[in-house]
Amino acid sequence: MKALVTGAAGFIGSTLTDRLLSEGHAVTGYDNFSTGRPEFLADARQSTRFQLCQGDLLDPPQLAAAMSGADIVFHLAANADVRRGPEHPRKDLEQNTIATANVLEAMRQCGVHRIVFPSTGSVYGEPGIFPTPEDAPFPVQTSLYGASKLAAEGLVAAYCEAFNLQGWIFRFVSILGERYTHGHVVDFCRQLAQHSGTLRVLGNGRQRKSYLYVQDCIDAILAAIERAPGKVNVFNLGTDEYCTVDESIGWITARLGVSPAREYAGGERGWVGDSPFIFLDCSRIRSLGWRPALRIRDAVERTVAYLQENPWVMDRE
Amino acid sequence: MKALVTGAAGFIGSTLTDRLLSEGHAVTGYDNFSTGRPEFLADARQSTRFQLCQGDLLDPPQLAAAMSGADIVFHLAANADVRRGPEHPRKDLEQNTIATANVLEAMRQCGVHRIVFPSTGSVYGEPGIFPTPEDAPFPVQTSLYGASKLAAEGLVAAYCEAFNLQGWIFRFVSILGERYTHGHVVDFCRQLAQHSGTLRVLGNGRQRKSYLYVQDCIDAILAAIERAPGKVNVFNLGTDEYCTVDESIGWITARLGVSPAREYAGGERGWVGDSPFIFLDCSRIRSLGWRPALRIRDAVERTVAYLQENPWVMDRE
Repeated sequence: MKALVTGAAGFIGSTLTDRLLSEGHAVTGYDNFSTGRPEFLADARQSTRFQLCQGDLLDPPQLAAAMSGADIVFHLAANADVRRGPEHPRKDLEQNTIATANVLEAMRQCGVHRIVFPSTGSVYGEPGIFPTPEDAPFPVQTSLYGASKLAAEGLVAAYCEAFNLQGWIFRFVSILGERYTHGHVVDFCRQLAQHSGTLRVLGNGRQRKSYLYVQDCIDAILAAIERAPGKVNVFNLGTDEYCTVDESIGWITARLGVSPAREYAGGERGWVGDSPFIFLDCSRIRSLGWRPALRIRDAVERTVAYLQENPWVMDRE
Repeated sequence: MKALVTGAAGFIGSTLTDRLLSEGHAVTGYDNFSTGRPEFLADARQSTRFQLCQGDLLDPPQLAAAMSGADIVFHLAANADVRRGPEHPRKDLEQNTIATANVLEAMRQCGVHRIVFPSTGSVYGEPGIFPTPEDAPFPVQTSLYGASKLAAEGLVAAYCEAFNLQGWIFRFVSILGERYTHGHVVDFCRQLAQHSGTLRVLGNGRQRKSYLYVQDCIDAILAAIERAPGKVNVFNLGTDEYCTVDESIGWITARLGVSPAREYAGGERGWVGDSPFIFLDCSRIRSLGWRPALRIRDAVERTVAYLQENPWVMDRE
């Protein structure tokens, strides 16, 4: 197949791009390099089946040009900065909601019928059911990021209905692994590289979170587009476990061989819109035969190992 | 209180404006008159407590100027054309989602903390539970209109969380009554004014729908902002009954004294995204003591009477 991958220079986008190329597909990578890293595309650029288009999703003509001839769109580009949402509310609206509307319009224009859309467990807000299933009670949004992804999910579904597209929506827990650039593991590793004796922790350390290894995430996406034939297919993506922030810190510091004093900012939530407990019911995607290969602890440790070997990733916030 | 009413020249907006003025409040009406009718503000203009600002929600500086000094925003402006969504998908995005984001940003800028937002029962897509409660299973969107309102709901909730606003979100069934300009009753009355012998009906006539009288709707909104103190308050708004399209046609034609042959377009749905059954569980708003005064049949008949007395309303589609 010929795929358009938006956010192709990002953490998950570049990993997906490499996987698609390794399976013999053709990929057009679309990225504005606002947060994407050219280094992540070094392998992809070796392939004659890869084409890079430096462009912005808020530029519809350029987007349509890149999309022409694609069979499927993997719309990975997003503003993934949940924590700083309130500092720039327009960013989530533009880069997540409006960008997705533009992708869908370009698909309609170019006659592309299949879209993979990564959403987030944050759309559940602060759910009352754990593990949280896809048909959990209608949630109330607690973060601008979650709201922008919910909006984009709705657009994907409505376009599928109105224009006969087929969509796969994945509600991710936090993804970890090689090329990870954003989130608590990189925050902690960056801090500990600067001062190994102290670690500032947002919240009280007892927030319970779920994580998934990036290759497991991509396995799940590829399994779903092959095996889930519905018009709008919604899947939670995570492991069958969770850990506390404190446990995660224990694994990170052990792997780095440091014993910092932990300074907690306090409070049940690390920031406005932080969900104190994220644990998704993933039986739907498991029913397709998918299983994650790595447990959370393994995923955290691989991420730390990657950051140790690639400290340049931590140069940029 | 001093209220900003967006969409003040619309059906519900103008009715709300008149009510607020009659209760002694000050109102700034904001409308771009794209679908609003100047005639609907004739009464309001008699009041010294009313101020009209002709402006667009996609013009943030003008919006902020109009909002300055308000205690509460009733954000009634919207593109309410569910049926024609697929003809202009950008319209729902701009006029519902982006416009709401602009309203929220202007509130933040101007220090306005309370927002009333009318959403729609369409956000439930095609639910599996009837009557459908506010905490129904996480829905899949089936219309661009529903998706744009869902997106706006999410923005309202996330802004409440991030910026300490207070929000009241109402998921309306179709609203009927005086100044009604849009929907099946006006469509049918317009057709029958042109040719009383035949009536074209979208779908098979067996779609089951719910309606609420506009003054009952406004009673409910005012009751909720007085009695529901939560940060984000979500209420379904409808009656405890529904009717079929065929029943509604019976009431309309009886009132008009015509007996047209009905030509059904066929199919369970009247258009893409039409929900064949809308029936909301309104026990939450009823628990605040609110009751609708009119039944659906009365609301339909009053609407027909209004259109008979005001045929100019039907001049414009």
